[in-house]
Amino acid sequence: MTVQPSILPGFMELLPEEQVLFEHVKATIETVYRKYGYWPLDTPAIEKDEILFAKGGGETTKQIYHIAKGEHASDQSLRFDLTVPLARYVAQHTSELAFPFRRYHIGKVYRGERNQKGRYREFYQADIDVIGMEQLSVLNDAEVPAAIFEIFSRLGIPGVRFHINHRGLLNGFFASIGISDSEAVLHAVDKLAKIGADGVSELLDEAGLTEEQKAKTFAFIGVTDERPAMERLASVAEGMDASLPGGETFLNSWADFQTIVRAMEGFGIPSEHIVVDTSITRGLDYYTGVVYETFIDGYESLGSVASGGRYEDLASNFSKTKMPGVGISIGLTRLFYQLREAGLIAPKKGDYIAALVIPMGQEETAAAIHVVRELREVGLSAKLYTEPGKMKKKFSYADQEGVRFVIIIGENERKEGTVSIKEMESGDQRVMPLNEAIRYLLEQRSLDGKGRE
Amino acid sequence: MTVQPSILPGFMELLPEEQVLFEHVKATIETVYRKYGYWPLDTPAIEKDEILFAKGGGETTKQIYHIAKGEHASDQSLRFDLTVPLARYVAQHTSELAFPFRRYHIGKVYRGERNQKGRYREFYQADIDVIGMEQLSVLNDAEVPAAIFEIFSRLGIPGVRFHINHRGLLNGFFASIGISDSEAVLHAVDKLAKIGADGVSELLDEAGLTEEQKAKTFAFIGVTDERPAMERLASVAEGMDASLPGGETFLNSWADFQTIVRAMEGFGIPSEHIVVDTSITRGLDYYTGVVYETFIDGYESLGSVASGGRYEDLASNFSKTKMPGVGISIGLTRLFYQLREAGLIAPKKGDYIAALVIPMGQEETAAAIHVVRELREVGLSAKLYTEPGKMKKKFSYADQEGVRFVIIIGENERKEGTVSIKEMESGDQRVMPLNEAIRYLLEQRSLDGKGRE
Repeated sequence: MTVQPSILPGFMELLPEEQVLFEHVKATIETVYRKYGYWPLDTPAIEKDEILFAKGGGETTKQIYHIAKGEHASDQSLRFDLTVPLARYVAQHTSELAFPFRRYHIGKVYRGERNQKGRYREFYQADIDVIGMEQLSVLNDAEVPAAIFEIFSRLGIPGVRFHINHRGLLNGFFASIGISDSEAVLHAVDKLAKIGADGVSELLDEAGLTEEQKAKTFAFIGVTDERPAMERLASVAEGMDASLPGGETFLNSWADFQTIVRAMEGFGIPSEHIVVDTSITRGLDYYTGVVYETFIDGYESLGSVASGGRYEDLASNFSKTKMPGVGISIGLTRLFYQLREAGLIAPKKGDYIAALVIPMGQEETAAAIHVVRELREVGLSAKLYTEPGKMKKKFSYADQEGVRFVIIIGENERKEGTVSIKEMESGDQRVMPLNEAIRYLLEQRSLDGKGRE
Repeated sequence: MTVQPSILPGFMELLPEEQVLFEHVKATIETVYRKYGYWPLDTPAIEKDEILFAKGGGETTKQIYHIAKGEHASDQSLRFDLTVPLARYVAQHTSELAFPFRRYHIGKVYRGERNQKGRYREFYQADIDVIGMEQLSVLNDAEVPAAIFEIFSRLGIPGVRFHINHRGLLNGFFASIGISDSEAVLHAVDKLAKIGADGVSELLDEAGLTEEQKAKTFAFIGVTDERPAMERLASVAEGMDASLPGGETFLNSWADFQTIVRAMEGFGIPSEHIVVDTSITRGLDYYTGVVYETFIDGYESLGSVASGGRYEDLASNFSKTKMPGVGISIGLTRLFYQLREAGLIAPKKGDYIAALVIPMGQEETAAAIHVVRELREVGLSAKLYTEPGKMKKKFSYADQEGVRFVIIIGENERKEGTVSIKEMESGDQRVMPLNEAIRYLLEQRSLDGKGRE
């Protein structure tokens, strides 16, 4: 009896060419993270519940994949993000790490989300964070998005825009206009792009703002004051008194924020890719300083493709040492799905294997083995096809495998120490000595950067 | 209240320098697998129980990490190897794949093993397999270990020996001497290296072998016949009659085996690294053709560091199509632990980050940002240190982070557009223009291949 082969709903699994593309995206992220000096980290996918839920559960607990022991749920679960494991790691290894500690982590996390298109229950996150000891220079807040910018540039995705804001500006401003508990207000303001000014207005009414407070809020977030955000903020700063409620918070944050925006350009993000957006707030309790969301021009409906910000004390549940940090997370699995759906990335035939080597008959086997070995020795990826059958079947395999070149070894080639090299797309076929063929393939590789080791 | 930060027993977690080394080993494996033309594959870590246990459970079911739904165990579990998911994958996607289908898969698997040193409950496997449709050329059986050989060569681990045997030779031989149910005998023979000839003799007695059968068995496995294994096998083959029980199996296997051994050399494994070992059998029901184990000279106590073989029908539980295959699996997490313990690999200071850039004061921040950006633009990995504090603290950070070069930007450097570059180990410090410093770092990188993108 055979079992119907299938996977669970909400899990991603790719066919080979798509997997190659996924690996390319993942490797691009990793290369950039490394170049920016972040250490790799890999933590267990299973953690103790007391670690995962040290903060208290909230919404996420319902989505948790618990591990069973025997028939019953145990006190272990699969991680739902990479931030809790990072907090646990830095608290556990504080004395063994140098701070600021920069780490990247690309790993799978698990959330039993409602099953819907483009949402996955197992997905890769690709995070970078910088963690300080007691303090952390705000220049890090500028460098983190610069790494993200380079990733998208390398992937050939244009029009990436960082929407940035600062929680200290928001909190300081709201306190200064007499709103001390700003949670509902931040929540309302964050919806501006989604529900428009009228929608936000209703939510602000519900939050109990006076007409005057509402008017000031709408000016602050740019609905009624159409000057560029930095000008608006500068004029608020000018009128701000450090001794008033929220005043010091606002003015300190304003100084930091200007430093961050300037340094983002310094780190290589052109100014037209930086959008100061006083309406983004990113959740409610975690972030304390700069916050970022990342959008792709023309594809705003995808939502933010990389988000993060500055937090005050990463590991407060695990350590008495204050560890402020800043980071950004890419939801890699979802991003890949989105970029594919939008046609912003696509697999390319001939990208992966430099050549398929086919001996015409058994007599040519040894010569064909010699050829693949020589190709691999110079770093070219090569595959050998030694199944019996007609040439038509063999070429059809080459086609299915998406190789660009086929190297055929027939009787003549074997006797003369040559190879017949055929470019699949054009059908061009030429006979040449092996070393010449290798030179040719290496040239092709350096021309288009493909099939390389 | 803070929770004591810790991980579950039996899980591996590394400090940054060790993690860099682990990533290096993993990347080496991946690079070689790709060069040999294997497609990447990544399947969900959670599968349906009906898939994971289609074959029946056996010993492994006790070690399974089941997923709980609410309070109770569900019908989903974490995978315990990468072979069952591969079988499910090829059965599920048969019509979308080209056969022979070559794939590599480096991923985490889960087994609730008894907690002991060097054994992990979450560990990476790094597998390659080639799967045929109905048939598969035995040349693949030779290519698979060649990839493994290249991996160990690249890791700088000498003295890797492949112990190879063929289940058809064993089955054919035992049938020919009147042993039709050879399970207990294979089990006994496999223990030769561990328990010696006397131990095997006892087990063979228990299995009910006659003295004559035992004598022939001892000659066959090389205990009493001291000729090289290939000579022994050749003489058995010479005396074998195809019409006798096991005769045809033995003779066909012998022809294949000779092809495989010859082709292993052709693919690049020097003959002194190939040990025909008629006593290895590798488990009892899965493998049907060639079997391999891999040992490191002088470190035989580590056991086999890469094992595998040929199987008759990979996906019989999921498909009616016969899919023979051959593959090898590296238990990467355990291997890493073993190689570290044995001192065969070690992290190197200065391997990861090309340079740490330190501005002397706030005035030099913009210049320092410019420097890291220029370094990264040519592909050099660079880290910026902008925390306040004394130079001593900054150099101590450079030391802890294991960087080889520190680039210091002071007032003079800022004004003159130069940098001060200090090699940490020698203490040598020189002032030069930035472009010269970049050229110098690139030279150093190409000399020792470090800190590269």
